[in-house]
Amino acid sequence: MKLSKNEIADFNKSCNQDYKHENDFLRSKFTKKGIDIDAIIKKVADFQVAIPSWALGAGGTRFGRFSYGGEPATLEQKLNDVGLIHALTKSAGTVSLHIPWDIPEDINAIKEIAANHGIVFDAMNSNTFQDQPNAEETYKYGSLNSTDKRAREYAVEHNKEVIRIGKALGSKSLTVWLADGASFPGQLNFQTALKNTEDSLQQIYAAMPEDWKLFIEYKPYEPNFYSTTIQDWGTSFMLANACGERAYTLVDLGHHLPNTNIEQIVATLMHKGKLGGFHFNDSKYGDDDLTVGSIKPYALFLIFNELVYGMENNPQNPYPAWMIDASHNIKDPLEDLIQSLEAILMAYAKALLVDQKALKTAQLENDVVKCQEILQDAYNTDVRSILKAAREQAGGAVDPLKAYRAFQVRQQLIDERGLEVQATGL
Amino acid sequence: MKLSKNEIADFNKSCNQDYKHENDFLRSKFTKKGIDIDAIIKKVADFQVAIPSWALGAGGTRFGRFSYGGEPATLEQKLNDVGLIHALTKSAGTVSLHIPWDIPEDINAIKEIAANHGIVFDAMNSNTFQDQPNAEETYKYGSLNSTDKRAREYAVEHNKEVIRIGKALGSKSLTVWLADGASFPGQLNFQTALKNTEDSLQQIYAAMPEDWKLFIEYKPYEPNFYSTTIQDWGTSFMLANACGERAYTLVDLGHHLPNTNIEQIVATLMHKGKLGGFHFNDSKYGDDDLTVGSIKPYALFLIFNELVYGMENNPQNPYPAWMIDASHNIKDPLEDLIQSLEAILMAYAKALLVDQKALKTAQLENDVVKCQEILQDAYNTDVRSILKAAREQAGGAVDPLKAYRAFQVRQQLIDERGLEVQATGL
Amino acid sequence: MKLSKNEIADFNKSCNQDYKHENDFLRSKFTKKGIDIDAIIKKVADFQVAIPSWALGAGGTRFGRFSYGGEPATLEQKLNDVGLIHALTKSAGTVSLHIPWDIPEDINAIKEIAANHGIVFDAMNSNTFQDQPNAEETYKYGSLNSTDKRAREYAVEHNKEVIRIGKALGSKSLTVWLADGASFPGQLNFQTALKNTEDSLQQIYAAMPEDWKLFIEYKPYEPNFYSTTIQDWGTSFMLANACGERAYTLVDLGHHLPNTNIEQIVATLMHKGKLGGFHFNDSKYGDDDLTVGSIKPYALFLIFNELVYGMENNPQNPYPAWMIDASHNIKDPLEDLIQSLEAILMAYAKALLVDQKALKTAQLENDVVKCQEILQDAYNTDVRSILKAAREQAGGAVDPLKAYRAFQVRQQLIDERGLEVQATGL
Amino acid sequence: MKLSKNEIADFNKSCNQDYKHENDFLRSKFTKKGIDIDAIIKKVADFQVAIPSWALGAGGTRFGRFSYGGEPATLEQKLNDVGLIHALTKSAGTVSLHIPWDIPEDINAIKEIAANHGIVFDAMNSNTFQDQPNAEETYKYGSLNSTDKRAREYAVEHNKEVIRIGKALGSKSLTVWLADGASFPGQLNFQTALKNTEDSLQQIYAAMPEDWKLFIEYKPYEPNFYSTTIQDWGTSFMLANACGERAYTLVDLGHHLPNTNIEQIVATLMHKGKLGGFHFNDSKYGDDDLTVGSIKPYALFLIFNELVYGMENNPQNPYPAWMIDASHNIKDPLEDLIQSLEAILMAYAKALLVDQKALKTAQLENDVVKCQEILQDAYNTDVRSILKAAREQAGGAVDPLKAYRAFQVRQQLIDERGLEVQATGL
Repeated sequence: MKLSKNEIADFNKSCNQDYKHENDFLRSKFTKKGIDIDAIIKKVADFQVAIPSWALGAGGTRFGRFSYGGEPATLEQKLNDVGLIHALTKSAGTVSLHIPWDIPEDINAIKEIAANHGIVFDAMNSNTFQDQPNAEETYKYGSLNSTDKRAREYAVEHNKEVIRIGKALGSKSLTVWLADGASFPGQLNFQTALKNTEDSLQQIYAAMPEDWKLFIEYKPYEPNFYSTTIQDWGTSFMLANACGERAYTLVDLGHHLPNTNIEQIVATLMHKGKLGGFHFNDSKYGDDDLTVGSIKPYALFLIFNELVYGMENNPQNPYPAWMIDASHNIKDPLEDLIQSLEAILMAYAKALLVDQKALKTAQLENDVVKCQEILQDAYNTDVRSILKAAREQAGGAVDPLKAYRAFQVRQQLIDERGLEVQATGL
Repeated sequence: MKLSKNEIADFNKSCNQDYKHENDFLRSKFTKKGIDIDAIIKKVADFQVAIPSWALGAGGTRFGRFSYGGEPATLEQKLNDVGLIHALTKSAGTVSLHIPWDIPEDINAIKEIAANHGIVFDAMNSNTFQDQPNAEETYKYGSLNSTDKRAREYAVEHNKEVIRIGKALGSKSLTVWLADGASFPGQLNFQTALKNTEDSLQQIYAAMPEDWKLFIEYKPYEPNFYSTTIQDWGTSFMLANACGERAYTLVDLGHHLPNTNIEQIVATLMHKGKLGGFHFNDSKYGDDDLTVGSIKPYALFLIFNELVYGMENNPQNPYPAWMIDASHNIKDPLEDLIQSLEAILMAYAKALLVDQKALKTAQLENDVVKCQEILQDAYNTDVRSILKAAREQAGGAVDPLKAYRAFQVRQQLIDERGLEVQATGL
Repeated sequence: MKLSKNEIADFNKSCNQDYKHENDFLRSKFTKKGIDIDAIIKKVADFQVAIPSWALGAGGTRFGRFSYGGEPATLEQKLNDVGLIHALTKSAGTVSLHIPWDIPEDINAIKEIAANHGIVFDAMNSNTFQDQPNAEETYKYGSLNSTDKRAREYAVEHNKEVIRIGKALGSKSLTVWLADGASFPGQLNFQTALKNTEDSLQQIYAAMPEDWKLFIEYKPYEPNFYSTTIQDWGTSFMLANACGERAYTLVDLGHHLPNTNIEQIVATLMHKGKLGGFHFNDSKYGDDDLTVGSIKPYALFLIFNELVYGMENNPQNPYPAWMIDASHNIKDPLEDLIQSLEAILMAYAKALLVDQKALKTAQLENDVVKCQEILQDAYNTDVRSILKAAREQAGGAVDPLKAYRAFQVRQQLIDERGLEVQATGL
Repeated sequence: MKLSKNEIADFNKSCNQDYKHENDFLRSKFTKKGIDIDAIIKKVADFQVAIPSWALGAGGTRFGRFSYGGEPATLEQKLNDVGLIHALTKSAGTVSLHIPWDIPEDINAIKEIAANHGIVFDAMNSNTFQDQPNAEETYKYGSLNSTDKRAREYAVEHNKEVIRIGKALGSKSLTVWLADGASFPGQLNFQTALKNTEDSLQQIYAAMPEDWKLFIEYKPYEPNFYSTTIQDWGTSFMLANACGERAYTLVDLGHHLPNTNIEQIVATLMHKGKLGGFHFNDSKYGDDDLTVGSIKPYALFLIFNELVYGMENNPQNPYPAWMIDASHNIKDPLEDLIQSLEAILMAYAKALLVDQKALKTAQLENDVVKCQEILQDAYNTDVRSILKAAREQAGGAVDPLKAYRAFQVRQQLIDERGLEVQATGL
């Protein structure tokens, strides 16, 4: 199934138009502070977040999985799902593939499908945390960090293959997330594991085309429960520096110990020009992979406040690669992604509303009360009208979730694909 | 495969006998404090911990699973595995089954196999956190707490079936662990969910034979990531009180928020006569289900210090049901269980060494330094010789792990059962 | 200094009046859902939060304290400070005293000052976590839980004195927060400590007038760093039940382990009719005592969602006592309290906007996506215009913080009281 | 008061001599594995840990302080206290001073007192987290990171003064711990704060003599409760690199988020040659500053396992500066320090017992079960006899705590100094 521009335009006409008046009100309020609402609408409309191919089916936990009907069984169907989200939101114009789940049989056919949906290929993802059927080496005890040279080489080779596929598709970056670590004290020699990881990453880095970037993800635990070789931003940053200029740290919101100040990490990395990518999700306990903004929307806003600051003030940092990295155990995956996109754009719009000049003055005066007032004045503003206007201008649905339900997308996907099919992924 | 008493006795003869001298040394040291080492050896020998049937195969995480050869495919084979552990350790004389994974086809045959191994059936476990093939209702949105009356009834009925099977096998208790909860704010009405859970548990309680106990487990999160209906001991305790005298709280070591003082919970529950059961494992981050004693052995000792105190001073509390509840992602499951048993018995033996009289005096004098000295004098003692003597007396292996490897148990199991078979469970 | 109605009314006239139009917009939007904005304005105007007497001066940490000028040195001055906040916000109409810091010399004079400010005396607070000069017993090793009978009696007697003072002032409740616990394993016998605490609380309960309530606070740690005798809501709830009908649990937002689902605790307690009081603050790490709403405003909203639900559906639960319990290390204490009140009222107003009927339907249909949409539709609404209208109707300042600065309150207090004076408290 | 060698030797004669036989037993057991017990005794005897001057009096929390009699009121008395600990333990042969609390009036007199006790001056510590009376600038809003240039310069100048004093005393290193950070979002511009900190540290680094080292401490929170500018090892490491070769990271055990894998950080830093110093304490919740080994002795052992490995395998890393950094709220400070020293040496001795060769083999074979067995075989060994022999050889007390009490040290200090005196420090 595919949603046409006309269908969406017709839907928009049926929607409440009050948001236009709300924007007039915001315009009059913020113009006084020298903040241009229409420029913000434009920026919101331009913001694109990659959908990962593995997030289009139902996820699960180690305690099992409850399936969802109409899941995409093939790469083509995954692209079609992203196409649906993009048609509705106009903010999901990129996709992130995961190899070996998404090896295209016919590269050109895949590229054409993507192009038809207005979708480009963002960062490629490798997988060395599972053994594939017929694997020649096992990753049970590690991949890039393994004590076994053959396992390391096998994992490096897999990453090279991912680069080759990505190159063919037009991707320009590789994200490496490593589960490598230990579940028990003594299992690993930390120094050897770190050294092996560095060596392997350097080989992967060397195999990238010259216009590619390498994103090194970090995570404190899970699936290993005692130590993870790349456990924090400091380790990732150190490894990125050891690889070279085009190696960067990737921040995933869920990959932190309790209470970590993530926005400060973001600021530090941008200051050093090393924030390469960003994975969005939300969590209350661990790497819960919940819908973005469903648990801690203010923390998300504070992070975006640093991202916006960095994008405006840190030319040394490349424009980051954005991706949603959530798992959908209990919601329709497409609805979940639409909610995530909405939360991301709200946080972005609110961060754009921050009166940076006034904030700087208040900081210099150590007027802590006013600093908070300035941030919260932006945060407390209802920016949904800005998002509606942005989507409307871009040809998306004013209210994507309502549209998704009005068009009965899920039912049509079930009709097309059946109830039982299961998407590849976690 | 089965290990005979003679084989084990022969193995013991080949072992280093130094532990006997070590026990002489401990005897002379602790007799001065009025602590009887031989009585402790006897208590250690008598201590039996249930092996859960689902822990005999390789576990996994949501990121996949690395299989282990020779896993037990049937209930009979699971009992044989427990039998092997029990033959070696003489401390695994009970087994805990999980329905529907372990529905016996021939009750009497199963009972006979267990009897041959000297194993009895401890608490039964129900499963309402997964949908079984052909399930008539779904637990996707809850079971005992569901807003859907039919789902609740279906889950209650399942628990009744578990009771029936347990009754036939000679079990005397039911453990209810509920995944029920919500992954997103708003998803559940907390009060309704709690009320439904209470009603359902009361029905299950009413269906138990009069000599049975109900153990209500609690857990803060996972697989639900925003709220769990029975989130803590307070909720479990409240529900147990609402059910009746033979309903108790069950403590699982891994089911707590970071930094929780678990030993204090144990003391509180025993004081109130409501600690029914105890699940052993270890963890660094979440419910990691690692080998007991592999991460925080001192915390385990402090917990056993309360358990020992309660068993000696709280007649109002029943003797607790002990079980290991770990997952074995990276170690041979049987070796992992042997290590867990060793850690449990070490903590128990050390707790028995605490000079309770001196401790009480120091507490009354607020001599905090001495209180710590007394606990740590017990903890710092090397009690492995006590465990060896206890096992030797009971007919087990002096060094069970060494014996397990000497007898090449895993290889024989692989020869018997093959490399590819996968046990039911998580 | 004192702010007159006329001064505030004049200030209001100088303020931007746009909020009235914003309320018109909200009215038209929410009337469709059957939600009455004017009724919400009325509820917000009626909501009163107690200011604790100890929060009017600069706080500090164990690493020191940076003083703030113009702090109140006497109880009279503290009441005047609360009066200033109340005049501006019309939502701080109660005060909570702490004995021995606030022992009134002339009860009638104090009552008259309070009455002049329109302030009544909310819950009284005792202090057994510090030794006062000339104390006859020490609380170094505990108070209500002490192994020393005399220390327990001394602490009980102190609480009785607090009740006597409170009675004279017209207070109707006593809040007991206990630091009692241990910093080292072994220091305390948990069961004895719990038993002693229960006995002591029962004596205090028995000493209360028949129309008084007892609020039992809980906290996991600090100032004791290994165990706290009343460590969680479950322990408090158990003790409240052991005391009697008019004993309740008091929830302080900062007194929880990382990631605790506090809103679920609130719902459970209200369901059982045992939520007596509530202390507001915010935190990122521990009991940070930061300005309400400065770190996790969404969590505060979710808590208010349960409070509003409970106030409407749980007649078994009394109307809770509200208090701000924050420390002001870096902000002007009065400004900090004004910001806290604003955050509380915003969360309250948003919770009142939740479409409870639609939510119930979505919950019954397990439409998890819609449940989130309903909550977030309320949360994303900018309710500041509702607060402005509520304050304006009540005779307070439309923008209290702006008014506070316009009236140069702090400078006047410094002129009156000097720079060096230090308020009693933490 | 001072303890003479003869007094201690006499005391030792009165002690149980069984430890010698225990060492014989260990000798026979470990020699088989190629591990030399006498070499370990020698290493334990040589291990010296600095006592910080501020830890000799009673500590406190923000909720108050319970004083302890006989506290040292002057630097001379502080050195005498360290001398007492050193005489008993022979492992406290260094002291760490804190300026401005310990500014010596007569450098030579102080050096002579220290020399008489056999004590040398380890790392100097500056203090920019409090305002001293008559301070010209305030650190309320930061020191090295301040937006106010004068405050930064004032803080840099203070550190230079600390260097000058240290130089005169024979110290060779400076530890900088910064409380600098923010308690509220928006208060600080993270990038500016980081940049200012880097600039300030570089100035301090430049002011150090060429044979000095700079240790940069990190901490996630407290006394600031939203962000700390040097929040983790990654930030400290980055800053150390920006300063130069003789700048290092300092690890304080209590300065980590919940569940952090500290031993991995230690390994990483030693691998990179950047672990300069180490502060010992223990904690259950936050920076609790409890007696070393009182809460998580196994974690301490795992950390020492990495330290021992690094000291043997990482010539690129300097020998680390060891210090105890604990607070003594409830125990006699000197007894607390003696317990801490014992815990440190036990962990060290156990780490030295690890069969590194067998461990390496097991790691290469991915024999995870055996890896754990090897570590725990060392950990489960009772090494107290090794410590006794080490102390006895060095001229200290076989049982220092028993000796401390036998000599009635505290009573004598109270007699000398009185009950009311309060040491400077936290």
